[in-house]
Amino acid sequence: MNIRDYKSASERRHAIEKKLGLKLTNIGNFTFDENVASSKNCENMIGASQIPLGVAGPLEIRNSKFEIRSYYIPLATTEGALVASISRGAKAISMSGGANSYAFRVGQTRGPVFSVKSIEEQRKLYLWVKENQEKLKKVTEATSKHLKLKKAKVRSLASYSFVRFYFDTGDAMGMNMVTIATQKAVELIEKETGVKCLSVAGNYDIDKKPAWLNFINNRGFKVWSETVLKKEVLQSVLKTTSEKFFEVWLAKCMIGSAMSGSLGFNAQYANIIAAMFIATGQDPAHVVEGSMGITTAKALKNGDLHVSVYLPALIVGTVGGGTGLATQKETLSLLGVAGTGRVEKFAEIIGGAVLAGEISLISSLSEGSLAKAHEKLGRSQK
Amino acid sequence: MNIRDYKSASERRHAIEKKLGLKLTNIGNFTFDENVASSKNCENMIGASQIPLGVAGPLEIRNSKFEIRSYYIPLATTEGALVASISRGAKAISMSGGANSYAFRVGQTRGPVFSVKSIEEQRKLYLWVKENQEKLKKVTEATSKHLKLKKAKVRSLASYSFVRFYFDTGDAMGMNMVTIATQKAVELIEKETGVKCLSVAGNYDIDKKPAWLNFINNRGFKVWSETVLKKEVLQSVLKTTSEKFFEVWLAKCMIGSAMSGSLGFNAQYANIIAAMFIATGQDPAHVVEGSMGITTAKALKNGDLHVSVYLPALIVGTVGGGTGLATQKETLSLLGVAGTGRVEKFAEIIGGAVLAGEISLISSLSEGSLAKAHEKLGRSQK
Amino acid sequence: MNIRDYKSASERRHAIEKKLGLKLTNIGNFTFDENVASSKNCENMIGASQIPLGVAGPLEIRNSKFEIRSYYIPLATTEGALVASISRGAKAISMSGGANSYAFRVGQTRGPVFSVKSIEEQRKLYLWVKENQEKLKKVTEATSKHLKLKKAKVRSLASYSFVRFYFDTGDAMGMNMVTIATQKAVELIEKETGVKCLSVAGNYDIDKKPAWLNFINNRGFKVWSETVLKKEVLQSVLKTTSEKFFEVWLAKCMIGSAMSGSLGFNAQYANIIAAMFIATGQDPAHVVEGSMGITTAKALKNGDLHVSVYLPALIVGTVGGGTGLATQKETLSLLGVAGTGRVEKFAEIIGGAVLAGEISLISSLSEGSLAKAHEKLGRSQK
Amino acid sequence: MNIRDYKSASERRHAIEKKLGLKLTNIGNFTFDENVASSKNCENMIGASQIPLGVAGPLEIRNSKFEIRSYYIPLATTEGALVASISRGAKAISMSGGANSYAFRVGQTRGPVFSVKSIEEQRKLYLWVKENQEKLKKVTEATSKHLKLKKAKVRSLASYSFVRFYFDTGDAMGMNMVTIATQKAVELIEKETGVKCLSVAGNYDIDKKPAWLNFINNRGFKVWSETVLKKEVLQSVLKTTSEKFFEVWLAKCMIGSAMSGSLGFNAQYANIIAAMFIATGQDPAHVVEGSMGITTAKALKNGDLHVSVYLPALIVGTVGGGTGLATQKETLSLLGVAGTGRVEKFAEIIGGAVLAGEISLISSLSEGSLAKAHEKLGRSQK
Repeated sequence: MNIRDYKSASERRHAIEKKLGLKLTNIGNFTFDENVASSKNCENMIGASQIPLGVAGPLEIRNSKFEIRSYYIPLATTEGALVASISRGAKAISMSGGANSYAFRVGQTRGPVFSVKSIEEQRKLYLWVKENQEKLKKVTEATSKHLKLKKAKVRSLASYSFVRFYFDTGDAMGMNMVTIATQKAVELIEKETGVKCLSVAGNYDIDKKPAWLNFINNRGFKVWSETVLKKEVLQSVLKTTSEKFFEVWLAKCMIGSAMSGSLGFNAQYANIIAAMFIATGQDPAHVVEGSMGITTAKALKNGDLHVSVYLPALIVGTVGGGTGLATQKETLSLLGVAGTGRVEKFAEIIGGAVLAGEISLISSLSEGSLAKAHEKLGRSQK
Repeated sequence: MNIRDYKSASERRHAIEKKLGLKLTNIGNFTFDENVASSKNCENMIGASQIPLGVAGPLEIRNSKFEIRSYYIPLATTEGALVASISRGAKAISMSGGANSYAFRVGQTRGPVFSVKSIEEQRKLYLWVKENQEKLKKVTEATSKHLKLKKAKVRSLASYSFVRFYFDTGDAMGMNMVTIATQKAVELIEKETGVKCLSVAGNYDIDKKPAWLNFINNRGFKVWSETVLKKEVLQSVLKTTSEKFFEVWLAKCMIGSAMSGSLGFNAQYANIIAAMFIATGQDPAHVVEGSMGITTAKALKNGDLHVSVYLPALIVGTVGGGTGLATQKETLSLLGVAGTGRVEKFAEIIGGAVLAGEISLISSLSEGSLAKAHEKLGRSQK
Repeated sequence: MNIRDYKSASERRHAIEKKLGLKLTNIGNFTFDENVASSKNCENMIGASQIPLGVAGPLEIRNSKFEIRSYYIPLATTEGALVASISRGAKAISMSGGANSYAFRVGQTRGPVFSVKSIEEQRKLYLWVKENQEKLKKVTEATSKHLKLKKAKVRSLASYSFVRFYFDTGDAMGMNMVTIATQKAVELIEKETGVKCLSVAGNYDIDKKPAWLNFINNRGFKVWSETVLKKEVLQSVLKTTSEKFFEVWLAKCMIGSAMSGSLGFNAQYANIIAAMFIATGQDPAHVVEGSMGITTAKALKNGDLHVSVYLPALIVGTVGGGTGLATQKETLSLLGVAGTGRVEKFAEIIGGAVLAGEISLISSLSEGSLAKAHEKLGRSQK
Repeated sequence: MNIRDYKSASERRHAIEKKLGLKLTNIGNFTFDENVASSKNCENMIGASQIPLGVAGPLEIRNSKFEIRSYYIPLATTEGALVASISRGAKAISMSGGANSYAFRVGQTRGPVFSVKSIEEQRKLYLWVKENQEKLKKVTEATSKHLKLKKAKVRSLASYSFVRFYFDTGDAMGMNMVTIATQKAVELIEKETGVKCLSVAGNYDIDKKPAWLNFINNRGFKVWSETVLKKEVLQSVLKTTSEKFFEVWLAKCMIGSAMSGSLGFNAQYANIIAAMFIATGQDPAHVVEGSMGITTAKALKNGDLHVSVYLPALIVGTVGGGTGLATQKETLSLLGVAGTGRVEKFAEIIGGAVLAGEISLISSLSEGSLAKAHEKLGRSQK
């Protein structure tokens, strides 16, 4: 049996069922357009995985255009307590006057690697790229009307040169687009400098691996979100105080992460990023980039608490990839960010949701209730 | 409207539809048991996200028990080309005699942080933990019959002490279990030493953040997988040679990752981990840990190529979490690893699939076809 | 002219003077034993470099044996303000009741790399090392009566295996010793397992490169030192307050270092380590390891301030290397740590001096006087 | 006794001798100008440390101005075998036609940290710095005629903003200069934006701590050096082959360093940097930055071997600091780089010397002679 030879998901599924003596009934249940999904999103399709989808919130966010709105945060997750936790954080934020979010587009990156024979050759490549940004702009932007070259930076050894291209990819996450555009840039560079490209993707993008390059020089969007939690809200909703919260934040997010050699000075960014990415059709492998970042806490004189999150590399889009699938599209609509012109807003909502997750978990740890929550959940699982 | 007050996913969904003036028809389509999912996996449930599920393979793997079997690798993904890419790698591996995989259980970790007043106090804590591993074993293992304490390691400053507990959690991923067990250990330590715990989770686990601690001292399972690609297979299936493959591997996975300050010396571990984790009900935030690791390549004298992957921290389970949901259970069955006693085998299959992904992508880069593949896909998207 | 053919430092110096048309009069001035130095410490010797040597202090330290003593800290440095800065910190510490220091011997490490052909072979190597620690002990300890094997840890890929040997090297820093001992271990492993060693030093030691392995699993000695600065001393000597100090510490040593992707969560460990290492005949390349570590600050309710330093990998000795040279020996005597049985004490003094440096610099930054100090110095340099 | 009250090095030394019952005769022997050294380089001076000074070479280097010259490399060291090792590397390089070196000035950095109250305030600061680079240039350059502001980059959280200033400091290493200049910039920023600076040095420089920021965005000079070792030279001088060398380089410098979580993908940069820095009056704490970097090796078809080094952050000067002291000045003259207009050349010589060290050590490891060399040395020490 060659799985590729079958014409439809159901044929493939039945062939596998037969071969392995299984029933895959649930996998066969889906409502998205099979023809589109099997040609654009997933080869050898046999059906779909269903992930429970919950909503946290409402969460009040003021975005960079000073729009203030309440959002239901969609979270596709199988990890009990996550939605409840973010809901609690959202409540605390909303009761304190909402979160402020800001997203800044750094650009999607591709980082080809060239083989250079000598320092002289790498200098030649460096100078060529520096002096021909306009040419590079022209050749890359010809590949798509949705793409703009923001800059191209070179870092070299004597044997290898890496060029990091940063693109504005509009509403799309854009890895597909930037790969095609970079290929054209590579061909131009090869032709004009005689230097040979080893790989259009040379891990200097760097895509889907934890890396300081993405932390320090950023990738996709950098996103900040902050709130000032009121003293009363800390007490009534979060069952903690600004002092306790600060103490746990410092011990865990700063000292603990330093001791661990981490790029994540935070409590649980990855949980929120993963659940929102799956719900909204993002590439879930970009959870890696999204897990990096720093949470801050500052106890104010009046008992209030300033809390903020900083995500150095959030990779998102509102068109392309999985965003056009049936449930994903509905989820983006739920947030009001389906379609074009709304990707910054989407990034800013994610920032706010991540902030809610930090607030809830650090509060919970500061008053010793995490294990209790798990225990309750644990019991229900027996 | 308070979303929590509604009794069912459909009530919640309808309330939101009404409030936001939307139709969430597709989200309402799911086949898993709502009562179970909404109590164990996802609060405020409104339905489900559907992710296209494809299969790559067959992929022949010899596991650590010397069982040789062919697997269809289930991948829930929205990123076109991924399934095809892994299928190609699987074909190359299978035609070369299969992959060898080996998983070693390091254990699930929890790392509470204690507030210590002085060097003297941290020494006291250190010595107590060192000398009372049996007591710690007893108190933690009393919380679940599925859990065993493997070891507890202390790292301290003068102001903070971190204890990293490593547990064997059987077939479960086990974060829930280890949190409850660690809480008991913490209470014992507090009682016997007088030292106060600040947080049961002090980022010295370290959970869902990229971190050298997990790379160096590992977490969950460490997994190796390897194959020797035949010269003819490199040519016919992968359209490359051992020299070209080696050259790109070195430039990208080693030099490029070094230049980027990365913990991922690989091509695309995260892609495979994410797609398999979603398909099989793992916690997708653990893609962060799974994205770390080193791929190696060695060109042999006869034109063959030894390729291997090393995943220092793979976090998986075959029971608990999302593994019991309808489609996820079917997917685990498809791999033959549903239920108990099969978690190592499952980890070893993931290792093999990750190897297939590396082989395919690096080959593709080495012969310049990545952009072409994307271009083809890109065109189909216009 | 072949520089190696000359018989003495003066002959070599004169040959160079003649060839280059220079006068190297000052280089010719030294008082150590030329025969010893030119055979043990420095080939092709032409003379000596002179580094100004100052003393900071007195600094009161209570070491791990509960001895309380005041030390003059010897610092060989050319960077103005360093000695004065440490003196100020020493004064603040001494007036507050002294520093507490504690050193723990982790052991000197060597990390050979083996070429393995397969996962099976690396498992074989792993098991052999695990089961033959006694044999390894015997063969390595036969190379020197001053050396004991503490443990040997294996980390492997499918193609490479690394073994990290930890040795107690007595009073010596011991890199020389452990290389010889590891060579014997390597020969035994090669003979008994058939696995081939590629390099006796495989950067899994890891020697003289910044690395998380040394931070997380330590190397040489780990050292803590702490003090509680009195409120009045903060005011009178350091011109700051516990609040200001804390605020700068958090912003600089924690947040700033996190933003920089650093392994040094401190203000200036390297300055003190470098100056003491040069003064006392240590290997100054080990400043790299010594620059890692975390400083902590905690404002107490009464206005006092707890400050601590943690050095995860301090590499020192009191015999061997440069410790036997004329000025270096005098400097070790000045500290009371020349000769045998005093290396822990020496490490603990360094810890105290590093603490003094942190206290002084962070205080200075917190009240804005660093630039002023430099300006004053700058003027004197014009 | 207050050590600061004494008027001269000899008075201080005698006071300490008397107090501690010691003889510090050798420390009292020095030939530099005491008045200058005690006011500019070292407070509380009691004398000098003498470090044996040897020369390696001659080493033929072609610098970025295409000057070809042979250098004797001065090395102040107490570690036996180092000078001999670099000499061997220098011989191999020179016999193969010399090394090519290239230095590029990135600039000396200072990175103050500001306390920001909100995202809005950090945006304000960001925009102000972006739009007022000319004002910043004016105010900083007014502090010294030797200093130019190259750029100022902002990175922010919601609570902290870091500005990284890059300065051209001419022939000086310049930390002193840039601190004073940055202080003026800080005062201007505070005045015009109302944002408060917490510390003029906020570890975003980042000075003397291992950090990816310095690796990725560089600091001081970045330096490359390369050579093509002839097949015959590999055999006759280095007793190895290009294959063996390559194999050890890959296993040690790439895989081993990756496994260690290192920023040093090299064999022994720190050894050469430390010895040259001490000899030439550099700040030895900057060995930390100098220990980072990547060595590459490429076996050529004809049996030759391309080897290169890349130092991302070399911090050096030829005036100021310790460069004016008696022996240090002579050493700089020996290299032909004393005084002004030669700092790039100096950096390029260091690059060549570092290359020599890599070649020698990796060769030695590849043919198993390191332990033997140490053993010989070890015996002579008994």
